[in-house]
Amino acid sequence: MPVKQKSPEQQRLDDLRFRIRHSAAHVMAQATLDLFPGAKFAVGPPIADGFYYDFSVERPFSPDDLVRIEERMRETIAANAPFRAKELTRDEAEARFAGQPFKLEIIAGIPAGEAITTYEHDGFVDLCRGPHVDSTGEAAAFKLTSVAGAYWRGDERNEMLQRIYGTAWESQEALDAHLRRLEEAARRDHRRLGQELGLFFFDRLAPASPFFLPKGAALANALTAYVRGLYERYGYQEVITPQVFDAELWKRSGHYDNYRENMYFTYVDDQEFAVKPMNCPAAALLYGSQLHSYRELPLRYADFGRLHRYERSGVTHGLTRVRTFSQDDAHIFCAPEQVESEVASFIGMTQETFGVFGFDDVRVALSLRPEQRIGADDLWDAAEGALASALDGRGMEYELAQGEGAFYGPKIDFFVADAIGREWQLSTVQLDYNLPERFDLEFVDSDGARKRPVVIHRAMLGSLERFLGVIIEHYGGAFPVWLAPVQAEIIPIADRHLAYAEQARERLEAAGVRAHVDARSERMNAKIRDAQLQKTPYMLVVGDKEAEAGGAAARLRSGENLGLTPLPEIAARIAAEAARRE
Amino acid sequence: MPVKQKSPEQQRLDDLRFRIRHSAAHVMAQATLDLFPGAKFAVGPPIADGFYYDFSVERPFSPDDLVRIEERMRETIAANAPFRAKELTRDEAEARFAGQPFKLEIIAGIPAGEAITTYEHDGFVDLCRGPHVDSTGEAAAFKLTSVAGAYWRGDERNEMLQRIYGTAWESQEALDAHLRRLEEAARRDHRRLGQELGLFFFDRLAPASPFFLPKGAALANALTAYVRGLYERYGYQEVITPQVFDAELWKRSGHYDNYRENMYFTYVDDQEFAVKPMNCPAAALLYGSQLHSYRELPLRYADFGRLHRYERSGVTHGLTRVRTFSQDDAHIFCAPEQVESEVASFIGMTQETFGVFGFDDVRVALSLRPEQRIGADDLWDAAEGALASALDGRGMEYELAQGEGAFYGPKIDFFVADAIGREWQLSTVQLDYNLPERFDLEFVDSDGARKRPVVIHRAMLGSLERFLGVIIEHYGGAFPVWLAPVQAEIIPIADRHLAYAEQARERLEAAGVRAHVDARSERMNAKIRDAQLQKTPYMLVVGDKEAEAGGAAARLRSGENLGLTPLPEIAARIAAEAARRE
Repeated sequence: MPVKQKSPEQQRLDDLRFRIRHSAAHVMAQATLDLFPGAKFAVGPPIADGFYYDFSVERPFSPDDLVRIEERMRETIAANAPFRAKELTRDEAEARFAGQPFKLEIIAGIPAGEAITTYEHDGFVDLCRGPHVDSTGEAAAFKLTSVAGAYWRGDERNEMLQRIYGTAWESQEALDAHLRRLEEAARRDHRRLGQELGLFFFDRLAPASPFFLPKGAALANALTAYVRGLYERYGYQEVITPQVFDAELWKRSGHYDNYRENMYFTYVDDQEFAVKPMNCPAAALLYGSQLHSYRELPLRYADFGRLHRYERSGVTHGLTRVRTFSQDDAHIFCAPEQVESEVASFIGMTQETFGVFGFDDVRVALSLRPEQRIGADDLWDAAEGALASALDGRGMEYELAQGEGAFYGPKIDFFVADAIGREWQLSTVQLDYNLPERFDLEFVDSDGARKRPVVIHRAMLGSLERFLGVIIEHYGGAFPVWLAPVQAEIIPIADRHLAYAEQARERLEAAGVRAHVDARSERMNAKIRDAQLQKTPYMLVVGDKEAEAGGAAARLRSGENLGLTPLPEIAARIAAEAARRE
Repeated sequence: MPVKQKSPEQQRLDDLRFRIRHSAAHVMAQATLDLFPGAKFAVGPPIADGFYYDFSVERPFSPDDLVRIEERMRETIAANAPFRAKELTRDEAEARFAGQPFKLEIIAGIPAGEAITTYEHDGFVDLCRGPHVDSTGEAAAFKLTSVAGAYWRGDERNEMLQRIYGTAWESQEALDAHLRRLEEAARRDHRRLGQELGLFFFDRLAPASPFFLPKGAALANALTAYVRGLYERYGYQEVITPQVFDAELWKRSGHYDNYRENMYFTYVDDQEFAVKPMNCPAAALLYGSQLHSYRELPLRYADFGRLHRYERSGVTHGLTRVRTFSQDDAHIFCAPEQVESEVASFIGMTQETFGVFGFDDVRVALSLRPEQRIGADDLWDAAEGALASALDGRGMEYELAQGEGAFYGPKIDFFVADAIGREWQLSTVQLDYNLPERFDLEFVDSDGARKRPVVIHRAMLGSLERFLGVIIEHYGGAFPVWLAPVQAEIIPIADRHLAYAEQARERLEAAGVRAHVDARSERMNAKIRDAQLQKTPYMLVVGDKEAEAGGAAARLRSGENLGLTPLPEIAARIAAEAARRE
């Protein structure tokens, strides 16, 4: 098995960063308590790329406050004070943190007999298990980045605290590189680009539920068409299922007991119903509606059905965490011996797709049997073995996530790094030996016996809404031609060229090009600038000369100028680029 | 205005049929009370193509009962007894119908001072306003057709009665023709064909909500693709909107007050939300999310969004009356002076589409201002005038439906007759001067002033689910090539030809043909017979000779035999037929 391991250097660097960030959090807490004497401090862990600390204060922190805290932190760092661990008795700890209610609550939660550890630097003591750097000087490459509200212990019934976020690195160069990435990420923020490019918007009357404007819908439809093309080649069959089901279904599937907090319920004829959060039970009903022979298997049912999942308003975010979305979701019903080839075929589809989107940095995790599980060990041996063989067969390196599988089967998750190095979880393929039991699904095998099929849940792009959010940021809004909502913006030089511009649009659209005429009464240069800001791949300027020649003066988004080009040639060029998915 | 009127002959025939059916209902009630002495009779009106009568009886009627009732009816008809009207006083009426609680309830509901009319024939008296034929002999061409349960006064809290349905015509020939149509309709019943052709099914856990199997989904997707093609040519822009909205939206749109009985409600963060039954309010939010210039109008937003409308289980029916569906729905936002050309363009689109589906018998109704309405008379003059001019301009005959418009604007409805003469309402176009007010929608006109746009609601196929039901029956399941879920069934002669069959499928699919391999272990003739029953347009038999020649022995659904034909030729032929929408 080509199982991936972290290199020793990477492991050492990750440990160092953890200790630096943990230490920077302590230094920040010290500075904040110094400058805001009434402040109560809660918790402050290291996180990915940085750290935070939560405080209870009389008024929210301002940007100026952060500057002052940073200055005070620099003094401590300049002093290069050592970090020292110390164990306290419960009495000592309670005395030390008198007047700090959050700390006292934490102490109260530590079981009697367990050690109460603290770390001290420069006279400041915090409850902490460590580890830290040796002294404050090692946390010099830091910056405070933002403030947000956060409930004590993440529970909205508790007090809202002020959370200060910061970032810290092993060197000034690493910090600067990170800050440049943050800037780049802000520039690419899909919420901002979504508005600037006229892709989507939100309305308070449908919280966390995107409205796709024509350009956003064109993008979504282009994605769906792409996936449908794959489905034809990879032998999937699309189905359409209902959205609202009797609660009885959700009890049978287990969602009622395990997922109801995230579901929308309603009453129909005085019976409890729920809007589907997942397609699986509908797929099971569909499979079960007919008797299947082993000759029909595998059956690959793809369902773009709209799902609804309640998410707390605190965690929803643009398109990447919404309350309603569709997935490129499919359920494969197959015989146990078909699992490996089905998973291998799916991996092939994801490899092809990651290539199309230029995701060439892919991380793969194989999640293995958890403690709590159904099924005998030899079933798990076979299932995990099939997934591992499928990965090996496709030449993929992967990490093993021990115990991370679902109770009903192992799974593979695929993570990709986008154009600026951020990692997103996209594809997943999950074996399920439980759903067929719950829905009593069968097939007639070659010997005439009724057997249970295996269900493979798989999604490649995952939520299409979330994937759109990811690729808006990945491309920074400059979509490749095949995805661009408007492939060619036609720009008439003067109003008298509008009629020809319309003709040109019709001819391009007849050739399958998504074209648009900028009919506004703006000056030509303003229109070119706007099309450039809209990141339109082709800008086609048309005036007297172009109308006479049956062409357009074509400019590319890259700045390249093609000069006067006949319309058929432009159409063919765009169609060819779209077909190559460039 | 080429306004359509019923011809005097048609009017006379309709009157005669009404009287025949009304009289047949009386004769049936008499026969039933004779044969079932304890029976109570309720009401029995003429309906389209026939009549019914409701009875309270101890046990449901059996098919044998209907035969006996028919026999007894024929005696009365042979006697040719005259119908005679008679007015009764309230006391006389109550005495006459003593022991008949439904009749007494009807009498109690007749206002004091109003005439209580009865009709008598052959000693049988019924409460009735008439009119009837002169004597029972005129109702000779009749037949009892079915029995069903029906609540007294249509209210499910009341007693369930037994309703006997019958049909009656002016001649035996007319009756026979009708019975042949019924037989043909039963043969084409989309619920039966849906099962036989593997298009869709229902499950009790999602009542009145279809599950589309792969073939049904292919059909639905082909329809959607057809509509999208029209949208490109007719200048529509597709949008995608949420499904679940805060009740505040429905209060603003008026649905909360006027439509809530048909809506599904849920709670999100302790706020009342509802699943959308219509797309209009979402379209209004979408339009209102940006400021629009007169130069952008008309804006045509098309939304295939899934809708949910509660319908009582007694009225749902197959695909034609469901609780969840999508529409080829669009909202056109335009300046008042653009209404006529927009409506004319929509009529052109429907004419084109009716031609594609072979609906050449189209009835059009223009619904005019109702008593209760918003807006001044000159606004209604202009609005009705615009719709009439659009119809005139497209050369359409139409009926005027006085007072049938909505309170917010006039509308046009399009009804088509299917292959066996049944009429279906399909398209509708509706002006709306109210929605822009409720949502405060504006555009900036050429003079810089803010003005209200008009909203045009329009749907061509209407509910896609219902339209699928209609065309399944219209085509009797033998879909034209462009719609057929499987265009070519590939039939290997023996198992050793399976590999070539798969190759052939891949080659056809690469050319855009929806092909399928019948890989079952059945004999070739059984497979051909099944493909014929599935009404597959092309059956492609492949054996040694065909594999060697790179072709297939092609047979058409019509029975025509094309003989051994090269695959590229078959693919080109199917693609050409699909492109011509034959």
